[in-house]
Amino acid sequence: MKNKTSAQSIALHKKLRGKIAIQSKTSVKTMRDLSLVYTPGVGAVSSAIAANPKLADQLTWRRNAVAIVSDGSAVLGLGNIGPAAALPVMEGKSVIFKQFTGIDAVPIVLATQDTEAIIATVKAIAPTFGAIQLEDISAPRCFEIEDRLSAELDMPVMHDDQHGTAIVVLAGLMNAIKVVGKKMSSLHIVLSGAGAAGTAIAKLLIAAGADDITVCDSKGILGMDRKDLNPEKVALRAITNPRGLSGHLKDALKDADVFVGISAPGILTKELVKTMAKKPIVFALANPTPEILPEEAKKAGVAVIATGRSDFPNQVNNALCYPGLFRGMLDKGVKKVDTAAKIRAAKAIAGFIKKPTADRIIPTIFDKGLHQAVAKSVKKG
Amino acid sequence: MKNKTSAQSIALHKKLRGKIAIQSKTSVKTMRDLSLVYTPGVGAVSSAIAANPKLADQLTWRRNAVAIVSDGSAVLGLGNIGPAAALPVMEGKSVIFKQFTGIDAVPIVLATQDTEAIIATVKAIAPTFGAIQLEDISAPRCFEIEDRLSAELDMPVMHDDQHGTAIVVLAGLMNAIKVVGKKMSSLHIVLSGAGAAGTAIAKLLIAAGADDITVCDSKGILGMDRKDLNPEKVALRAITNPRGLSGHLKDALKDADVFVGISAPGILTKELVKTMAKKPIVFALANPTPEILPEEAKKAGVAVIATGRSDFPNQVNNALCYPGLFRGMLDKGVKKVDTAAKIRAAKAIAGFIKKPTADRIIPTIFDKGLHQAVAKSVKKG
Repeated sequence: MKNKTSAQSIALHKKLRGKIAIQSKTSVKTMRDLSLVYTPGVGAVSSAIAANPKLADQLTWRRNAVAIVSDGSAVLGLGNIGPAAALPVMEGKSVIFKQFTGIDAVPIVLATQDTEAIIATVKAIAPTFGAIQLEDISAPRCFEIEDRLSAELDMPVMHDDQHGTAIVVLAGLMNAIKVVGKKMSSLHIVLSGAGAAGTAIAKLLIAAGADDITVCDSKGILGMDRKDLNPEKVALRAITNPRGLSGHLKDALKDADVFVGISAPGILTKELVKTMAKKPIVFALANPTPEILPEEAKKAGVAVIATGRSDFPNQVNNALCYPGLFRGMLDKGVKKVDTAAKIRAAKAIAGFIKKPTADRIIPTIFDKGLHQAVAKSVKKG
Repeated sequence: MKNKTSAQSIALHKKLRGKIAIQSKTSVKTMRDLSLVYTPGVGAVSSAIAANPKLADQLTWRRNAVAIVSDGSAVLGLGNIGPAAALPVMEGKSVIFKQFTGIDAVPIVLATQDTEAIIATVKAIAPTFGAIQLEDISAPRCFEIEDRLSAELDMPVMHDDQHGTAIVVLAGLMNAIKVVGKKMSSLHIVLSGAGAAGTAIAKLLIAAGADDITVCDSKGILGMDRKDLNPEKVALRAITNPRGLSGHLKDALKDADVFVGISAPGILTKELVKTMAKKPIVFALANPTPEILPEEAKKAGVAVIATGRSDFPNQVNNALCYPGLFRGMLDKGVKKVDTAAKIRAAKAIAGFIKKPTADRIIPTIFDKGLHQAVAKSVKKG
């Protein structure tokens, strides 16, 4: 199946030679057409914007245009494959933006992986766009890049790998606890993975009322005994691990209500699941091979399982969130993506399912009205 | 007329809210579609490119994508109006690229006018594109920016305001001298304007066989008496003015065969024309008001006149050149735009007119087959 999908995808890409194109919204067939679209007529448009730069939102594509910026350092599960290899992924995001919410999203892949150079580049090209989506930039650089750009640009900047994932996990968890009859504030949550997504998930779940999260990275629990943590992980430890645990994933999982993995294939064994609390909830998001396969998880007693894969129920897919979120921000002139906005987006995604069941805690990107509901959740700036 | 055009152009821009959009070349209606366009299928495409980066030319939009980069410092006749106000002009260029040669051209307007920052930004975003068109960047910064980017990037980089204009002027002049029966090598040419376009025109005409060009800027002839010249103008002086002239435009024009103005409205008076040689040729390219109006020029004895305007015959329009030139370079994998390529493009444009007349030395952008002829003139890299 995987090989067949790979071969078909390569064939499709060869045929298309790029999944996106520039479309002209007007045709130039006569000198008169040209004089309106270009000089001399366009001079009046430029002069109007020079006098009042906000008019660019009405007279150019800017209000509908998003740059999808990646340095190719953390692409899918493939790692640091560089800008050219990241381009087809960014084109795919652009296709999704267009298809679901009509946004003109332009891939911009970068020849640099230097934090300051990335910040300078995005700031330099920013007047072309209404918002910036950062994609597939590795931790910990992604944190500073996003923070600085959010602070220094007067437009929405969002690193999708962090917040898109976090918003959809929160949405799924909101519905999963309804299915099992638990409360957010009483959950013991174990998070396996302390990179970009893991950090954002921890912060957003805490903001949404979770107050007992234990985070593990590949070396074990982020506990007070760890001397090897970078500043970002030290900060993450400071807001998690209220039980003061140390040790390995297996020590964290004992009596846990929820496992969220953005880590490595197969690490959640059936034996480990059996040490969790009753009716455990599992988000096994390693891609393409999850931390545990749904069938095995269910056999081991998992009540609700979500993965990152489209061929199982409950797919945690950033594309549930970003098309609608950016649509709402662009339409309403919102300049910052704050925590409240993220929680509202998660509620919109969760609320889209009226009666959650174990196999449907998360909608699919094809559910009609979903992206509009997410866009609607954005409050005017 | 101008006011009507301005009002209609603003109305059109308000209606369109951007003249260009992103178009998805494939639709995503099912999970299967998604798995081919995005993950997991796209992972195979990314892996293939990571293993062989040249495959990005086949599997992404890159081989058909051009960035139109401007810092908004020298936009049309409007001057330094900044990036947002430059955006509708760059969108217009994008429309022309698409309409005439199917190229996907993305406007990139910059928040910086610093030479080093512009160079760094364009280099950073370069992996997204197959070629770079620089637009409306003021002299003398435009020279260094283009030179450095051409040297440091492995793709075509062309500042259109320099070379697009120069190529079309050369094309027009090739036909104009046929009309009046003169030879390139025996022409005394006066060039009024020593900025980006003027400098490029002088260099290209010399490369094409002209060997007697006198250049004037707003203060007069670039002669040995001038102590106020920047390094670029000193270099220009070194290759021009073989007569060792000094003084003002009127001193240069005496017995001149050709006047090329990219300067200021109305400066070529009828009286000045009468001091020129017999059958003078005039390129009055100041926009929107030329150095002399065609009617007046003809009354004063001008044999052939070209302007920058679409409402007179013989429009010098960069769009005669760049869509086809970039099409040819992208298709043939050409990495540098050298002088020989520019002369070939000029010959293609000139040669498109089989029997030049005073009112038809330059084709229009709507002439069928013109852009294909320019593309064909590009020699394989």
